[in-house]
Amino acid sequence: MNARQLFNQIREKGSYLCIGLDSDYNRIPKFLLDAEYPLFEFNKLIVKATADLAVAYKPNLAFYESLGTAGWMSLELTVNFIRSNYPELFIVADAKRGDIGNTSRLYASAFYNHMDFDAVTVAPYMGRDSVTPFLQYNEKWVILLGLTSNEGAEDFQLLKINGKKHYLFEQVFQTAAEWGNTDNLMFVVGATRPEWMKKIRKIVPDHFLLVPGIGAQGGNLEDISMHGLNKQGGLLVNSSRAIIYADITNKFDVAARDKAAEIKAEMETYLKKKKIL
Amino acid sequence: MNARQLFNQIREKGSYLCIGLDSDYNRIPKFLLDAEYPLFEFNKLIVKATADLAVAYKPNLAFYESLGTAGWMSLELTVNFIRSNYPELFIVADAKRGDIGNTSRLYASAFYNHMDFDAVTVAPYMGRDSVTPFLQYNEKWVILLGLTSNEGAEDFQLLKINGKKHYLFEQVFQTAAEWGNTDNLMFVVGATRPEWMKKIRKIVPDHFLLVPGIGAQGGNLEDISMHGLNKQGGLLVNSSRAIIYADITNKFDVAARDKAAEIKAEMETYLKKKKIL
Repeated sequence: MNARQLFNQIREKGSYLCIGLDSDYNRIPKFLLDAEYPLFEFNKLIVKATADLAVAYKPNLAFYESLGTAGWMSLELTVNFIRSNYPELFIVADAKRGDIGNTSRLYASAFYNHMDFDAVTVAPYMGRDSVTPFLQYNEKWVILLGLTSNEGAEDFQLLKINGKKHYLFEQVFQTAAEWGNTDNLMFVVGATRPEWMKKIRKIVPDHFLLVPGIGAQGGNLEDISMHGLNKQGGLLVNSSRAIIYADITNKFDVAARDKAAEIKAEMETYLKKKKIL
Repeated sequence: MNARQLFNQIREKGSYLCIGLDSDYNRIPKFLLDAEYPLFEFNKLIVKATADLAVAYKPNLAFYESLGTAGWMSLELTVNFIRSNYPELFIVADAKRGDIGNTSRLYASAFYNHMDFDAVTVAPYMGRDSVTPFLQYNEKWVILLGLTSNEGAEDFQLLKINGKKHYLFEQVFQTAAEWGNTDNLMFVVGATRPEWMKKIRKIVPDHFLLVPGIGAQGGNLEDISMHGLNKQGGLLVNSSRAIIYADITNKFDVAARDKAAEIKAEMETYLKKKKIL
């Protein structure tokens, strides 16, 4: 998928919602645990209930890997299910990978060839040759960790570099923007620091940004949207737990839809304010 | 495994060799491809041929993930095989993971509970709360990326921070050393920059260091060893391709043993020079 197609989807749905499939074996409704692949059953019902309200889905791989081969199977089935039934949706592997070049090439092949993800989240610490192998696929994306939403972001991302002129995370945006383009590179921007969104938009005015951390992680959707939206949309905002665990009875999918609809309605108002709709 | 047990193994074997199981479906001997789990068959024969020469094995997860569930099964079988037959060996998941705290907890569970790895490589960019969940397991280890061996290491790891006083990678060693101790935290130090080994030993004199990159990646074993070994051993040096692909006929395991024996013999001389043997 290219940036124009993603933007078209945002306009058609009036939404830039990404739903995080942080599907936890210990938190999904108990009646699903009898299925052969419980996480897949859970994901299928969540996606069916919300696919017209969201533009992207983002399984975090930790939840699948922690179950071994059975979890990996649930992940593959989920991607295939979305791809077959909702071909317009953007699917992100929240994997935070990054290794030396040869190895990153294998990870890229795992996510783009073996599975049909549109994008993979990648960590920047190992630099250019750990990231560029993910950029060699047509209409596939890297989503690079820029500024994250957790406390530990302060340990290194907020160190001042180059004679105290700017922060490490700013350098990551500047340097990495040269590795790709607005059709194959996005950045993760933690929503708990909306004060940085303006700074980041100066460095990468035209790139898509993936913002995790509204809802359970505490980010403010209005701040993020008013500073983050650009003329091409340019924003995917993720919510995971607030949607997928809105309810844990056998009506969890209806509750997930209600919560997603609520967020989508708010997003629609910001798209209008920004004259995108 | 604790640091003392690892050191005992180094002394008993006269070796601090870690063999990287970068087992590539496209590079292993063709006769193995008929097996149900070819990577596992390959690994089993490599480990059988070299287990008395090496103290650690390090599967890089990209090679397994790129094959999906079948690859994941090969990985699980490999860990179980080593654990059952050679309980003294140290097994590293070269995964380079790192995510927000809740999610890192799941990755830690995947590698330490679901599979019985001794250690996981972890990326530092997301800071403390992305790393500490891996430090909560008794006799299990984090191996944090400090200074990597690839070209891209220069992009961020060699940025000067705090008014040009030192490099980012030095700060990573300093800060992270406070998160764990010498019994649960090691660092990755790229061997292509032996000039930094002295600098790093000043910051973390007592920690174990995992050095990738001798052989195919071009590091010099003598430099690394003379600057890196400490009184507790303190060093694991990895070689992957030079050993496991020494030959691609059905005698690949014999050739792998010969190459491992050659490296081990060289290591033994440095252990003697350093009065560890």
